[in-house]
Amino acid sequence: MRMYDIIMKKRNGGTLSKEEIHFMINGYVKGEIPDYQMSAMTMAIYYQGMTDEEMTELTLAMAASGDQMDLSGIQGIKVDKHSTGGVGDKTTLVLAPIVAACGGRVAKISGRGLGHTGGTLDKLESIPGLSVAVEGEDFVRQVNEIGLAVIGQTGNLVPADKKLYALRDVTATVDSVPLIASSIMSKKLASGSDAIVLDVKTGSGAFMKETEDSILLAQKMVAIGTLAGRRVVALITDMDTPLGHNVGNALEVQEAVATLQGRGPADLTEVCLTLATNMLVLSGKGSYEECMAMAKGAIANGSAFAKLKAMVAAQGGDSRVLDDLALYGEADVMEELLAPVDGYVEHIDTEGCGIAAAMLGAGRETKEDTIDMLAGLYLAKKEGDEVKKGEVLARLYTCDGSKMAKAKEKLLSCYAYCEEKPVVMPLILAKVTKDGVERYDE
Amino acid sequence: MRMYDIIMKKRNGGTLSKEEIHFMINGYVKGEIPDYQMSAMTMAIYYQGMTDEEMTELTLAMAASGDQMDLSGIQGIKVDKHSTGGVGDKTTLVLAPIVAACGGRVAKISGRGLGHTGGTLDKLESIPGLSVAVEGEDFVRQVNEIGLAVIGQTGNLVPADKKLYALRDVTATVDSVPLIASSIMSKKLASGSDAIVLDVKTGSGAFMKETEDSILLAQKMVAIGTLAGRRVVALITDMDTPLGHNVGNALEVQEAVATLQGRGPADLTEVCLTLATNMLVLSGKGSYEECMAMAKGAIANGSAFAKLKAMVAAQGGDSRVLDDLALYGEADVMEELLAPVDGYVEHIDTEGCGIAAAMLGAGRETKEDTIDMLAGLYLAKKEGDEVKKGEVLARLYTCDGSKMAKAKEKLLSCYAYCEEKPVVMPLILAKVTKDGVERYDE
Repeated sequence: MRMYDIIMKKRNGGTLSKEEIHFMINGYVKGEIPDYQMSAMTMAIYYQGMTDEEMTELTLAMAASGDQMDLSGIQGIKVDKHSTGGVGDKTTLVLAPIVAACGGRVAKISGRGLGHTGGTLDKLESIPGLSVAVEGEDFVRQVNEIGLAVIGQTGNLVPADKKLYALRDVTATVDSVPLIASSIMSKKLASGSDAIVLDVKTGSGAFMKETEDSILLAQKMVAIGTLAGRRVVALITDMDTPLGHNVGNALEVQEAVATLQGRGPADLTEVCLTLATNMLVLSGKGSYEECMAMAKGAIANGSAFAKLKAMVAAQGGDSRVLDDLALYGEADVMEELLAPVDGYVEHIDTEGCGIAAAMLGAGRETKEDTIDMLAGLYLAKKEGDEVKKGEVLARLYTCDGSKMAKAKEKLLSCYAYCEEKPVVMPLILAKVTKDGVERYDE
Repeated sequence: MRMYDIIMKKRNGGTLSKEEIHFMINGYVKGEIPDYQMSAMTMAIYYQGMTDEEMTELTLAMAASGDQMDLSGIQGIKVDKHSTGGVGDKTTLVLAPIVAACGGRVAKISGRGLGHTGGTLDKLESIPGLSVAVEGEDFVRQVNEIGLAVIGQTGNLVPADKKLYALRDVTATVDSVPLIASSIMSKKLASGSDAIVLDVKTGSGAFMKETEDSILLAQKMVAIGTLAGRRVVALITDMDTPLGHNVGNALEVQEAVATLQGRGPADLTEVCLTLATNMLVLSGKGSYEECMAMAKGAIANGSAFAKLKAMVAAQGGDSRVLDDLALYGEADVMEELLAPVDGYVEHIDTEGCGIAAAMLGAGRETKEDTIDMLAGLYLAKKEGDEVKKGEVLARLYTCDGSKMAKAKEKLLSCYAYCEEKPVVMPLILAKVTKDGVERYDE
């Protein structure tokens, strides 16, 4: 078997066999197939696409390229959630406790933030003492005991994806649906859960700007997961406006706590309940309506918030800050952004908000940057809200006052106004299962 | 300027600017742009194509990447010929003397054979003593004195093409028309002639198997040459059957001599006269009819043959072997291939003939192999000829008898027969100029 022939086959629109795909990925990880052949291949895939079976084999080959999580010691159906990343996306902190409170098992590996998107691990680490480095038997024991754990990656998971992504990043082949889908799903398969709910963000703050593209990506990921023997559904959710009001690590934990206490923003609450309900359904906990009622009940009776505190305590964190948010402290500098006109907020450039928060210190430009845990934004006014000139649009927080002026200028530029109350899009745009697409935005 | 952005632009169907193309080629030759980015680019070009202007800039950038021949010391219009390569293609040995005999100037750099195709330099070196290493002032002086020289490449011509071709060869992007056209034309531009006649071979023995593909390639090369300020025409000629009867180095020189003496095969004579006439027209020697009459006259009056002998002598060769071909000697082993049936020769697999000749020792598998100058084929029967069972189809020659059996088996498999006399295609299928395409095969 020669890589040359495999490139030629794909270039000419052929369908690669299981053997060809595994030969390619194994050879690439071992360094036997050079970058220049793999980049020609990824460009050919960009144009020719892949069948569901090809994507599944690619995903399985990548998942098998390194260590794989063994969750067999955890009783019951393990359910995972993956978000394609957005701004102000603190859903994991809300839905994992809800699912655990309803008897589900969430053994979750999360990531860190980069660029304009935040990362769940960074948010958790704003809680004093909390460790995301829980390994092996400790991880299994924690999930068995309290139903949830959210940790950082340990071991050498999916090295093929790391190497391939780095190559795609410099050869203009990142935005290929088969390659995105197999990249995401390879990490989910290697993480070992039985069931996966995918949250595909769409809009100005997401990687996928158009709903149709998000649905296509979701269909491919659901097909891969299903062919690989997992239970998978995907929700297409709106990221054309930030989720909730808070952007920034400690600020987002505080908003997650409020949501678990039943006083969270309506949009965040709806998205978390919908995702948690789908996770419970995949876990075999009942019908959709039954699971939704259970999820709402877990907020109402305080059991979900108790699960978050139990997880924080199990991972060495000081859970008192969750009961008394004042203990978090506050950023040294706060400034208010005032509305420059009368009218309605027509749109908020969500990626721009993420950039403004990062400029305040809440995010990283490179992997080596450190984070200001208290920095971030409180968006008082959101899409569709009426504003009066001089009213507070947002508050900006930072521990480094020198960063304020530029971030404020950036945030101001993210707001667009109109004179009539605009129509706001639904939050949940569509649901994709192995049986088809249900749309809610028409 | 970043290579990433240039790849993205081409990937999305954009048109690259002159600056982008020169940045890319200069960076690649210097090693500042890595192979893995260039291979993603060549794959994107494979799918998206290039405009005539882009191809011209690519060609000019490659031509400027190393040394360029300075032919300004040669008086008059320098005319070159390029063949895309075939089997039994000894046209240079015939047409360069014809053009020189008619007052044209042929300062030609030729190549060596590889795989199933032969090379003019190898054929010339079958003449005892002849050197193809004529450099600088000696080359200019020889062309000024006798009107022709055929030499090997000296200096570092078109390093960008060498590097890019080696990369395309392992990444399945060889058969991209814009990349083939710019590769060929970069070498022609760097070789310094004012006018170029392109002989685009088509059929089973050529790189381009289909006439339409050959016409497209010819159009692109003519467009590039014209935009680069040269006079260019292209002929699409048949290589669905070997040209002439002889395949192999000394055997082909002998057939070229016969053709210059007016007793060559009809097909070879017609192709050489047509190419030479076009070279003379581009050199401003008269109308097409006038130039054709001059070319025929140069064969009839012996002046063309005298030019070949003068060139051989000027390059240190023993021109007596051309007057008395018996002085060449003969291969140690000769066997006859006999017709296995009665009927007509319907087709000869031309690439297969080239391979059979190479198996006898007439060609190279790798650049390091040495050649058996006397090895090769005499094809007694060609397409459309009637054959009787047991009649001689071909003779095979080699100095290494152990190679005979397999080569004979290969050659036998190249012949296909039919019961009715088949229709034979015209030799010259089309002519492409900057003004359009004239077809002769309809």
